[in-house]
Amino acid sequence: MIDPREERPLAALLAPDILALLDDAPQAVAVETEELHPADLADVAEALPVARVPALLAALPGDRAAAVMEYLSEDLRTEVLEALTTAQAADLLAQMTPDDRADALEELDEETADEILEAIPAAAREETERLLSYDPETAGGLMTTQIVTVRETSTAEAAVAEVRAIARAGRREAMNTIYVVDAAGLLVGVLSLRELLAAPEGAPVSEIAWTEVVSIPPTADRSEAARLIAEYDLVALPVVDENGRALGMVTVDDVIDAIQEEQTESVQRFGGLEALDESYTQTGFAEMVRKRVGWLSVLFVGGMFTTLAMGRFEDELNKALVLSLFLPLIIASGGNSGSQATSLIIRALAMGELRTRDWWRVVLRELPTALTLGAILGTIGVLRVLIWQLAGWSDYGADYERLAWTVGAALLGVVTIGSMVGAMLPFLLRRFGFDPATASAPFVATIVDVTGIVIYFSVAVWLLR
Amino acid sequence: MIDPREERPLAALLAPDILALLDDAPQAVAVETEELHPADLADVAEALPVARVPALLAALPGDRAAAVMEYLSEDLRTEVLEALTTAQAADLLAQMTPDDRADALEELDEETADEILEAIPAAAREETERLLSYDPETAGGLMTTQIVTVRETSTAEAAVAEVRAIARAGRREAMNTIYVVDAAGLLVGVLSLRELLAAPEGAPVSEIAWTEVVSIPPTADRSEAARLIAEYDLVALPVVDENGRALGMVTVDDVIDAIQEEQTESVQRFGGLEALDESYTQTGFAEMVRKRVGWLSVLFVGGMFTTLAMGRFEDELNKALVLSLFLPLIIASGGNSGSQATSLIIRALAMGELRTRDWWRVVLRELPTALTLGAILGTIGVLRVLIWQLAGWSDYGADYERLAWTVGAALLGVVTIGSMVGAMLPFLLRRFGFDPATASAPFVATIVDVTGIVIYFSVAVWLLR
Repeated sequence: MIDPREERPLAALLAPDILALLDDAPQAVAVETEELHPADLADVAEALPVARVPALLAALPGDRAAAVMEYLSEDLRTEVLEALTTAQAADLLAQMTPDDRADALEELDEETADEILEAIPAAAREETERLLSYDPETAGGLMTTQIVTVRETSTAEAAVAEVRAIARAGRREAMNTIYVVDAAGLLVGVLSLRELLAAPEGAPVSEIAWTEVVSIPPTADRSEAARLIAEYDLVALPVVDENGRALGMVTVDDVIDAIQEEQTESVQRFGGLEALDESYTQTGFAEMVRKRVGWLSVLFVGGMFTTLAMGRFEDELNKALVLSLFLPLIIASGGNSGSQATSLIIRALAMGELRTRDWWRVVLRELPTALTLGAILGTIGVLRVLIWQLAGWSDYGADYERLAWTVGAALLGVVTIGSMVGAMLPFLLRRFGFDPATASAPFVATIVDVTGIVIYFSVAVWLLR
Repeated sequence: MIDPREERPLAALLAPDILALLDDAPQAVAVETEELHPADLADVAEALPVARVPALLAALPGDRAAAVMEYLSEDLRTEVLEALTTAQAADLLAQMTPDDRADALEELDEETADEILEAIPAAAREETERLLSYDPETAGGLMTTQIVTVRETSTAEAAVAEVRAIARAGRREAMNTIYVVDAAGLLVGVLSLRELLAAPEGAPVSEIAWTEVVSIPPTADRSEAARLIAEYDLVALPVVDENGRALGMVTVDDVIDAIQEEQTESVQRFGGLEALDESYTQTGFAEMVRKRVGWLSVLFVGGMFTTLAMGRFEDELNKALVLSLFLPLIIASGGNSGSQATSLIIRALAMGELRTRDWWRVVLRELPTALTLGAILGTIGVLRVLIWQLAGWSDYGADYERLAWTVGAALLGVVTIGSMVGAMLPFLLRRFGFDPATASAPFVATIVDVTGIVIYFSVAVWLLR
């Protein structure tokens, strides 16, 4: 991947001018920035001194300011809301879309959030409170409640007029998807705006719409919403309650953010630490240590079994110290093959290519692969010992041949076990309700280290007897 | 993440009925499946015997069949196209959207693809050939050439009429975004269909449209397209040539697939293997071994340095064999802290939270974190030795106290070095043009193993002298 941020001059270029304008002629700011995409204007805001951002927002028309708020980083948005008076904050939030409003409030401390919420017009407040009641990691937490619905009884022409009226009313929800509801408000159909426009004037909406509506309950995991949107190439996914009443919709742009958050979390888990709540740069020292020391200590304590395992074989080591030379290499090979298998399976499970019940199919695929990989590394290992010995680069003593076979056989065993453990662990974890990504590379390596030591020395005992 | 595929009865349920219908009353299939989303119908096709899929497609109206083709798995789609006669395949492909048509042809072998391409109507053929000329990992390879453009001189009403005409003509491109072009066909503005509908009847399009258009050149990496679409919450991103002429657009649904592919690749790289071209289940045995044995061997050969390092310290080991007991634990701790740091940095770079030039900021953040983590593990290590000795669970000899300090000091050093190496490697790799994700957990672990051995025994030599 290229570095997305490598060149991003726009904000940096504009910030000084805007700053000057704010001092000299704030009333000119709105016009000057009129053509900027809110996301770019948000970048400009990020480049300003935090203290001046409220001034910038104040200088913009309310709906513009609200749009910019929606693109600010969580941190800056929170700082701005805290800097504003309750009235100002409420006024700004009232103009944001309900889902972004809820997100913004979620980041504030209870008290401040409640104060601001109190100051928001009743209708908007209730809607926001309803949204806040959903776990942010669910479809309900992701959805916007502003959806365009038309009655199944209306005609295409009437529906188009209705949609245009909504659009002209300046409400900012996405309306590429239009939902058809019956008299009871139950979701009975869906059609895209383009299908509505394509319909012959008089046609009743009920005839144009699709009656097989892909929908999701508010409690479903956001990753499920992402999967449905991706699979059906939707721009929006309706969220319906148990009665089939439409509560809102999850739009594709929210889902992209959700997918990327999910992926960040699983990459971090796979790296062997607790997923961070903030971005790397925004995570403080104490938090960073907390997120990392937990797993690191668990793995360390787990790793102590290697010490016990080594203790069991102290005598063998005494007899043939030369064995120790290859120990790190052999256990590392087990860990490497393990983390290969784990990363493959974790991803296949996450992408739905594999189901929990497919574990045995994976065994059948991994076993031959693992044996082959083990045989290849084993061969390299044997050659390594023989060549160094015969070339006189090292002296492994009279028993060098048996050492070679020990190393080779151990590698075959370690790589095979390593791959199998790495492949099965994600299934086990999911089976017991954990995130398969918890089968981190270090976790697998730690398990395989112990087995590696046991295998290596057992082979040694057997061959060097 | 929940398992997306855990329950997916629809396809499995319908497949048998459809199969029966295909035998008894193929003409009824179209009506029976009319209400199904093409994606679901594609699932049904996946559940049928491969040989019967062409019959299913033949039983559907051309545009339906084409839509279903777009949702089939790459493999099945390829098999179907190979099963059909050139004429049938060309007929089917001609009705697919240009970008999906190009994707489908890309999967066929040169020869078959060319034959089919020859049989496709000239206009569609040229368009497809142009699309095929772009690297599939670029914006050009992702884009569709079917975009809705209106002249800047036309009025809102005229534009709406135009859009409705296009929609009624049944062309299946997304039209949520409408592009404004000047007389020379250069992209001068963009507006959403909802903005067009909201506009007052007589208003000229040039006044409603945004003139600051976020666009991308066809050669840009697909991840850059993904970043722009995510940042600006776009449903489509226009692809323009160096003159500013619109070539096509990348739609958000293509980008979601791209994001997920990118992510799968980097998870696999981070796991220490070459990214697979197919899904795990579709990758054959030979291919699977090929993708894994490369890195595994490289790491193995790199790991041989641990053997050399061990050799350097054979005498120390001879003097104090007890040292060997803690060796695996200590080098593992280095690898674990390394892979933690690497996963954090790789992701932060991929998400654009960090730039290559930020490496020194990362040093300043990682060093104190690493020292703290090292100190904590070091303390646990010291206690481990002392407690086991004093409790009489193990006998580390008279020198047990110095062993404890050796273990503690070595852990402090190994964890610190491990974290720093893990944090800096991704920067180094990107600096030299590699994917930072190549800094796989095993790669970091291998580097840290050698340093771990050296640190441990150096401390030992110094303390046990």
